Amino acid sequence: MSDLSTDVEVANARFYRAFEALDLARMDAVWAHGEHVTCVHPGWPLLTGWPAVRDSWSAIFTNTEEMRFTLSHVRTVAAGEIAVVTCTENILSGVAGRITVTSVLATNVFERSPDGWRMILHHASHILARREEEPGGAS
Amino acid sequence: MSDLSTDVEVANARFYRAFEALDLARMDAVWAHGEHVTCVHPGWPLLTGWPAVRDSWSAIFTNTEEMRFTLSHVRTVAAGEIAVVTCTENILSGVAGRITVTSVLATNVFERSPDGWRMILHHASHILARREEEPGGAS
Repeated sequence: MSDLSTDVEVANARFYRAFEALDLARMDAVWAHGEHVTCVHPGWPLLTGWPAVRDSWSAIFTNTEEMRFTLSHVRTVAAGEIAVVTCTENILSGVAGRITVTSVLATNVFERSPDGWRMILHHASHILARREEEPGGAS
Repeated sequence: MSDLSTDVEVANARFYRAFEALDLARMDAVWAHGEHVTCVHPGWPLLTGWPAVRDSWSAIFTNTEEMRFTLSHVRTVAAGEIAVVTCTENILSGVAGRITVTSVLATNVFERSPDGWRMILHHASHILARREEEPGGAS
């Protein structure tokens, strides 16, 4: 189980390195290419199927000058052919000459293929202002 | 595989019925109760571990008068002991006397237990305004 988790965390890290490199060929190698893949970028509508997901990476890479990730709270649940990673993406990015630092929560799902673990889902979302009804114990 | 998917979709539907009922005891029966469970309500910070996740449902149920879900784009990937459901939650809700209709994207992960499929992750996020760099083909 621990080896399984390590393999998945390597696949997860490979996704963020491809993102930092703004390299579509490397993103091609990270993802499964079926109709079953899904992607939610922060605030975006749901994208389904590899062609739509790939187009989104192409658009993001075209519009991004720099992107650096530091991950925290990385948790992996892996069993059999599917693995789920949750993490906080601490992001330094440059878009249109403006540098921003932000935190995004991500759920990443991988499936085991003959070529190793391939991403089949990326769901990322921003943390908004704290809500009054949020429980005091939440962090 | 199709029976597996059906079982998981039943577990997913049970989650939304517990949410609609605003019933913490039913939510107790939907979720696994370990430290490994995680939950992201729309715009909220990451919650980890069942006590924090349960507290969040208690707070939401206390502050919600009515909640009705119609699901669309339900997709299930199930293998072995883990299953992933993605769906669009079309929500009619009543909070502080105000009725709102909104769409939320959700990723729900379940693990198989001796008592059936239990939720271990719920990640929900709002769709924000369409971005200019969004690919034209995305829907």
